[in-house]
Amino acid sequence: MNKPTSQSEFATPKVTTGPLPASRKVYTHPLPDLAVPHREIDLHPSANEPPVPVYDTSGPYTDPSVTIDVEKGLARTRRDWVLERGHVEEYEGRDVKPEDNGGASGKHLAREFPVKHRPLRGTGTGPVTQYEYAKAGIITKEMIYVATRENLGRRAAVEGAAERIAQGESFGAHIPEYITPEFVRDEIAAGRAIIPSNINHAELEPQIIGRNFLVKINANIGNSAVASSVEEEVDKMVWAIRWGADNVMDLSTGRNIHNTREWIIRNSPVPIGTVPIYQALEKVNGIAEDLTWEVFRDTLIEQAEQGVDYFTIHAGVRLAYIHLTADRVCGIVSRGGSIMAKWMLAHHTESFLYTHFEEICDIMRAYDVSFSLGDGLRPGAIADANDAAQFAELETLGELTKIAWAKGCQVMIEGPGHVPMHKIKVNMEKQLRECGEAPFYTLGPLTTDIAPGYDHITSGIGAAMIGWYGTAMLCYVTPKEHLGLPDRDDVKVGVVTYRLAAHAADLAKGHPAAQVRDDALSRARFEFRWEDQFNLSLDPETARDFHDQTLPKEAHKVAHFCSMCGPKFCSMKITAEVREYAAGMSENERLDLEKQAAEARKGMEEKSREFMEKGGEIYLSN
Amino acid sequence: MNKPTSQSEFATPKVTTGPLPASRKVYTHPLPDLAVPHREIDLHPSANEPPVPVYDTSGPYTDPSVTIDVEKGLARTRRDWVLERGHVEEYEGRDVKPEDNGGASGKHLAREFPVKHRPLRGTGTGPVTQYEYAKAGIITKEMIYVATRENLGRRAAVEGAAERIAQGESFGAHIPEYITPEFVRDEIAAGRAIIPSNINHAELEPQIIGRNFLVKINANIGNSAVASSVEEEVDKMVWAIRWGADNVMDLSTGRNIHNTREWIIRNSPVPIGTVPIYQALEKVNGIAEDLTWEVFRDTLIEQAEQGVDYFTIHAGVRLAYIHLTADRVCGIVSRGGSIMAKWMLAHHTESFLYTHFEEICDIMRAYDVSFSLGDGLRPGAIADANDAAQFAELETLGELTKIAWAKGCQVMIEGPGHVPMHKIKVNMEKQLRECGEAPFYTLGPLTTDIAPGYDHITSGIGAAMIGWYGTAMLCYVTPKEHLGLPDRDDVKVGVVTYRLAAHAADLAKGHPAAQVRDDALSRARFEFRWEDQFNLSLDPETARDFHDQTLPKEAHKVAHFCSMCGPKFCSMKITAEVREYAAGMSENERLDLEKQAAEARKGMEEKSREFMEKGGEIYLSN
Repeated sequence: MNKPTSQSEFATPKVTTGPLPASRKVYTHPLPDLAVPHREIDLHPSANEPPVPVYDTSGPYTDPSVTIDVEKGLARTRRDWVLERGHVEEYEGRDVKPEDNGGASGKHLAREFPVKHRPLRGTGTGPVTQYEYAKAGIITKEMIYVATRENLGRRAAVEGAAERIAQGESFGAHIPEYITPEFVRDEIAAGRAIIPSNINHAELEPQIIGRNFLVKINANIGNSAVASSVEEEVDKMVWAIRWGADNVMDLSTGRNIHNTREWIIRNSPVPIGTVPIYQALEKVNGIAEDLTWEVFRDTLIEQAEQGVDYFTIHAGVRLAYIHLTADRVCGIVSRGGSIMAKWMLAHHTESFLYTHFEEICDIMRAYDVSFSLGDGLRPGAIADANDAAQFAELETLGELTKIAWAKGCQVMIEGPGHVPMHKIKVNMEKQLRECGEAPFYTLGPLTTDIAPGYDHITSGIGAAMIGWYGTAMLCYVTPKEHLGLPDRDDVKVGVVTYRLAAHAADLAKGHPAAQVRDDALSRARFEFRWEDQFNLSLDPETARDFHDQTLPKEAHKVAHFCSMCGPKFCSMKITAEVREYAAGMSENERLDLEKQAAEARKGMEEKSREFMEKGGEIYLSN
Repeated sequence: MNKPTSQSEFATPKVTTGPLPASRKVYTHPLPDLAVPHREIDLHPSANEPPVPVYDTSGPYTDPSVTIDVEKGLARTRRDWVLERGHVEEYEGRDVKPEDNGGASGKHLAREFPVKHRPLRGTGTGPVTQYEYAKAGIITKEMIYVATRENLGRRAAVEGAAERIAQGESFGAHIPEYITPEFVRDEIAAGRAIIPSNINHAELEPQIIGRNFLVKINANIGNSAVASSVEEEVDKMVWAIRWGADNVMDLSTGRNIHNTREWIIRNSPVPIGTVPIYQALEKVNGIAEDLTWEVFRDTLIEQAEQGVDYFTIHAGVRLAYIHLTADRVCGIVSRGGSIMAKWMLAHHTESFLYTHFEEICDIMRAYDVSFSLGDGLRPGAIADANDAAQFAELETLGELTKIAWAKGCQVMIEGPGHVPMHKIKVNMEKQLRECGEAPFYTLGPLTTDIAPGYDHITSGIGAAMIGWYGTAMLCYVTPKEHLGLPDRDDVKVGVVTYRLAAHAADLAKGHPAAQVRDDALSRARFEFRWEDQFNLSLDPETARDFHDQTLPKEAHKVAHFCSMCGPKFCSMKITAEVREYAAGMSENERLDLEKQAAEARKGMEEKSREFMEKGGEIYLSN
């Protein structure tokens, strides 16, 4: 934990720092000024194996050589990359207004972030967004960075790469053996991948989202009108990325939204997403019908200047679709969707998000804020899955995708929600078709409604499946879903659950390097290298703690047995004997065995026929 | 909690009793002497809905009208059913020997169960097993019982049943709209389903396992050489069925196996399974090579007389397959499989389970102990999934299935293990093909190896999927898998996780009544009937507790908002307005809306084309 550095302990977020167990941060330099991090997990010398490289979302917080000062924010390395390629200008930026923080004042107003940065914006003289650069055939530093980042472990595993890819089932995705910057550029130009990277988020370690790359996960944080504070949210962000969140969405509502977000972005190495309509609603005192295009527009600029990397925009919720939700069991459960529904009903006119969509594109393009086209009509119950409202909106999102691309923006598409297993695949297929293969970003989906308190699991099932089918990013669900706001522990459980679901999807798709970690962990398990097993797991603390509950002594960490069989008999020990036996077996002995086995089998078959005849007779006549 | 009734508090298991929240036990009487239980969950009067019927595995422990006395065991209702159909005899039974309890004596010997019952066995004069009765065209009381039990909720939902079945994807399963005793008989006669029901388990509430019925789950309990006691295991059994375990396997090792099992069976309303080779190994002091057919045979009879409902028999692990595991990452991880491998290597001869398979059948038939043909060569790592050893064994299990059927026995087949998502389906397909559609009973499978501490989730994903594909019973995995022995909390988390996975599978298969509970819960959620939402969930305690952490006040239980949006704005409230609006809409207004929407869309498309042409030009020339 870093110490508070200001007098006001209230205002200084405390965050968890330091490496994970047995782990080192390693940087690769594809260019002299690019330092791409990954984590290496050291194994016990008895393993006689090299360290296991794993993707690292945790940022400088796990690098002991970096001094973390939450009051200053992270190093703004990326600003130079943006400036050197041009077509941007620094300018004064919008003044912070009282309504940006919900009118909070005095002790209710969260402290401003201590450092001010002048924002950048595109000048319109040339490309600004990653999509525009990609279309123009230009490889950016962000593209080189993510190519290096995605390749982790592939060099070691590359020998079997083609085979692994061939054995996987990727449902039309094309995962390459090795990721080149040119491949990244090509995927972005095709709209199949995005690098969410607002030019004002200079603290970012870029990352790519697309179905030909590793499956990513998002963690939602955010204070609400009811609970939590700035410090908690900054801590949750750092905590979420420590356990593997690739992205964080700040879904704050209520007061202090602006200041909370500034603290989060300045300290975030991962892309930050928001739903701007939430803040716009606060600016009109929570009265949806009072929303205007002008308030919304101003909010977009406010957030774009701060460096938000992607905006959820519910522009697919159209007036003509609203009545399609009337017979649903759960109506409209998306907060953004229902805000817009309420506005449209009150004014009986088309959504301003739809009618002003081009202007939204222009703003987002100027800062390279990526679209996350929101699914405001997503099903909130199994009964409502894949209905007319949901699919009408998805078709509209497909049209908007093409507009946004034409305007030069990066785009991903949000997906449901609550969907039973047999209705998941059609969601993926329809999304790919309607939205021109733009990356899909789904919330779960939850595969049943009956387990509140366990919805990280009901949704983890759906997430793993839809990730396998081609979804590029999975939005986590915590155990508190439907019940309350997640605390720190819930965030961790949600992140680890989605990390494992995303990994299961990578394995099934045939990602050439995914299985490296499974194999290393399984070898550690087999050889009773307990410490290695803990260290290689997604959550070493919990694995160790669970082991300690049954076998607390230090000696048990090196014991060649586990609590299931105890010290006397152990199934894993026996395999060592099997190996000796197999190694000592001649080809003739093997053939002889097989011959004997075949004979015995034949005898069995004869007996089976015999019995069957006899058996049939006895009891039919009974 | 029931109070200890003997002087020795040590020896009297304490178990959790009493109904679940808002729940009543209801009995249906398809025959005057059959009382088939289900649970009804009462809803708040404002719901204006009938109580929701749910399948009830919890036995008399949740019936306040039954006096529970763990010292006496449950009522032995089923004994009369068995006696009245004949072909059985009561006899003296085998004496308990010191080695049955691992030679424990004095204070180390667990107290004997206070009541003794003389065992029954088949006389060979006519059918004994459910399979034999089914083949003979006779419908037993067990068949009538399970038919009634499976139908719960179907009467209410039966109107849409055909449609739900048609909309599901059952991969060749044939789920009927309504379950008749004749359908049950037919499925058992075909070998597609079993009712594990040892004639000596008179306390049993019968239950059916087959892919045309509700997906079942199993919870493993059992003391070990390292930890836990008789009391803990009886408590765990009652606790597991309270949360939804359909079956319990007692995997005890070490001392006191016999006495522990007797306490469990006499108090268990669900089928109890065991792995007899575990106890046989204890009888030869843990030295696998000292095992003999005679020791094993004696153990089978000992356990059959006690009333064990199914035995895991690893007869498919043959000498000729052992060397196939030598190159695996995790070798042989099944305890039973490795015991037999060790024995075969030591004697260099075929497994006595295989060579004596017919005698095993004769013993199991005489008591109607069902086979659970063990997968001793299941993969213990992603790297080992679907390999030659695993599939060679599965083919042998197919042969043995036919022998067991010919001998009159009920059979199910155990499956893996660790399998990545894209390799799961072929397991199910091969099992159905090789084993003549005998019910499949899988452990997970775990879809990745990298999350020890979360293996209830890595495996819950695989379990839901394979359950959907056709697996009839899912063996749970707890968070402690690979790390330690599950305690009470782990048992609950494992059971609830598998309950939700099984339910997700039932939904996806198109079970006609499964969605009744989802819909009731979603309506409660939508209408802010918080108490109903808790009560309808698989784990009301956890749901309520999580809600209380954010909104502790009693007023919040009736509040029309949740902690996500707070009291000011609520997406669910807005749907009420949508409904009013839709209800007031004329057909003309609807058509007009659609026309306007289509025009706007056309305008958008034109602009998109325009931009695209312009955009392409600007940056290609840059």
